[in-house]
Amino acid sequence: MQITMTKRDEIARAIRAGHRALLFAHVMPDGDTIGSVLGLAWGLRQLGLVARVACADPVPAELHFLPGVDEFAPRRPSDEDLIMILDASDLSRIGDLYDQERFAAALLINIDHHVTNTHFADLTWIEPRASTAELILDLLLQLDVRLDADIATCLLTGIVTDTRCFCTANTEPATLRAAIRLMDAGASLAQITDAVFSHRSMDVIRLWGPALCRAVLSDGVLWTEISQEMLRQANATLEASNGLVNFLSTMHEARAAAVFREMGDGTVDVSLRSKPGIDVSGVAFAFGGGGHAQAAGCQVVGELAEVRERIVRALQQEVRASLEAPERIRSVIERL
Amino acid sequence: MQITMTKRDEIARAIRAGHRALLFAHVMPDGDTIGSVLGLAWGLRQLGLVARVACADPVPAELHFLPGVDEFAPRRPSDEDLIMILDASDLSRIGDLYDQERFAAALLINIDHHVTNTHFADLTWIEPRASTAELILDLLLQLDVRLDADIATCLLTGIVTDTRCFCTANTEPATLRAAIRLMDAGASLAQITDAVFSHRSMDVIRLWGPALCRAVLSDGVLWTEISQEMLRQANATLEASNGLVNFLSTMHEARAAAVFREMGDGTVDVSLRSKPGIDVSGVAFAFGGGGHAQAAGCQVVGELAEVRERIVRALQQEVRASLEAPERIRSVIERL
Repeated sequence: MQITMTKRDEIARAIRAGHRALLFAHVMPDGDTIGSVLGLAWGLRQLGLVARVACADPVPAELHFLPGVDEFAPRRPSDEDLIMILDASDLSRIGDLYDQERFAAALLINIDHHVTNTHFADLTWIEPRASTAELILDLLLQLDVRLDADIATCLLTGIVTDTRCFCTANTEPATLRAAIRLMDAGASLAQITDAVFSHRSMDVIRLWGPALCRAVLSDGVLWTEISQEMLRQANATLEASNGLVNFLSTMHEARAAAVFREMGDGTVDVSLRSKPGIDVSGVAFAFGGGGHAQAAGCQVVGELAEVRERIVRALQQEVRASLEAPERIRSVIERL
Repeated sequence: MQITMTKRDEIARAIRAGHRALLFAHVMPDGDTIGSVLGLAWGLRQLGLVARVACADPVPAELHFLPGVDEFAPRRPSDEDLIMILDASDLSRIGDLYDQERFAAALLINIDHHVTNTHFADLTWIEPRASTAELILDLLLQLDVRLDADIATCLLTGIVTDTRCFCTANTEPATLRAAIRLMDAGASLAQITDAVFSHRSMDVIRLWGPALCRAVLSDGVLWTEISQEMLRQANATLEASNGLVNFLSTMHEARAAAVFREMGDGTVDVSLRSKPGIDVSGVAFAFGGGGHAQAAGCQVVGELAEVRERIVRALQQEVRASLEAPERIRSVIERL
């Protein structure tokens, strides 16, 4: 009899054999990476492991309610036997915390739901689920971890943020079943949605007004930009522009949407969204980033206007190609 | 043995005995009233009844994908034995379609989830669930209606729109279970969220920019207004301002949020939202409207500036009272 071990089985076995784990969230962290790391950390501690959590960047204010969030720090590995990187599709996503020697001394595990994953780890489990948090839930259940309110709150936050509250196209009945399971275990959906979606600051009002006034729709691509000058005038932080690209992408004229943010360090942060049928992960990947078909991003060195022009052109090509493809097929059929 | 009939039982019995039904959605219809009416209409037809659907106002464009939506018209009753009004808390919510004589000739049934319901019908079933569509689902299951994709799509649209995609504080595991049941019956959550949340028009971008630029936060109340002049300048319809009040209410500084819309007929449409702990339904009710604690509204005769001033003042009092209440309790305790 042949027993096939899944990647999840292998990871569960490695955890059962492990003692000390360092868990990484990705740079510019969101609710899924932070929630997944914290949920897994609480689970590992229940199993008797020492679990520490790391992130190169600060955790956004709207996630500060999560249990254990204060323990995040830009840590490097010390004597861990397990290094786990969650919700990150390549090693650059942990920022400058990579350390070749110390990483080589541990088992490197990557759990992720991004199709652009580069398989950089010793043990990689990728499943294109709506959130990485759902994979962590599966893993914890396999490990017979008892779901408590802390774990459930962390994981439900991951699901809620990555699906924009069950609103993205990849939300399945399985996603809702995971949410119910976590609510039954003590997570409050109301508390989470209030924390993550209703704690925007007035910065957002001051920044989005001008940003929407200068939005441009061109050949199916709706874009706007946030310059350092706009941030100064609105007396706002960059964080206030989070969510702007999702908003742009809700316009039906926008086949693709983009927000370009001047980071002030010579780079431009680019967030991309698209309607089903148009894949923006390729554009993001071509510019050194990654993500999903309908939600991707990259950080590009260059001037705001120049980066924006190059990427808008690439997006317009992508939109045109997706519109032309069925057109071409139809014209071939008609000629038959 | 005493058998207690619930309101739902009584309504199910009336439907089984009925032949011709007219189903009303409320004025300025939303996804819950339209989805509930259509879902129930399809169910009644399966049971052999003739079911027609009525609404005083046109159905918003983002709901035009619903099966059967073309049948909505500003109808009055003719020879129906059942008149059912869904998702409406008082009779004025069906607009000018009320007709005393014909309404008196039929059994008037009201199914609703608003706490401000005035119990105007012969048979009223109110339950403070997240959406009226959930009540319709319960009723159809009790009537042994087979859930098909059409019914499921209509009802899931009701749930999704009223909970803003499971994001409102009243979303319970039961709400998610109803959603799973409807997805399993053939409703596509992705299609629904795409239709209702991603089919805003560029009007929205042109209108929200200026509306956010003139937003005011004062004593915990964040408000903005949409004048006829702003609509002209943005070349936008009133529909483009839908959702603006929800957006304002996501700012954590906003204990209450309001959008005042100059309707162009001498009235002002007022949409109110609030954070948990602050009840805006009382303010809406005092001005002739109604709704829920955290989401309510009213239409007020008067000039934009004057109506706005009166209601902002009432909201500020409500915010102040809610902040002072725990303060007062604390000071009493300290004096003990």
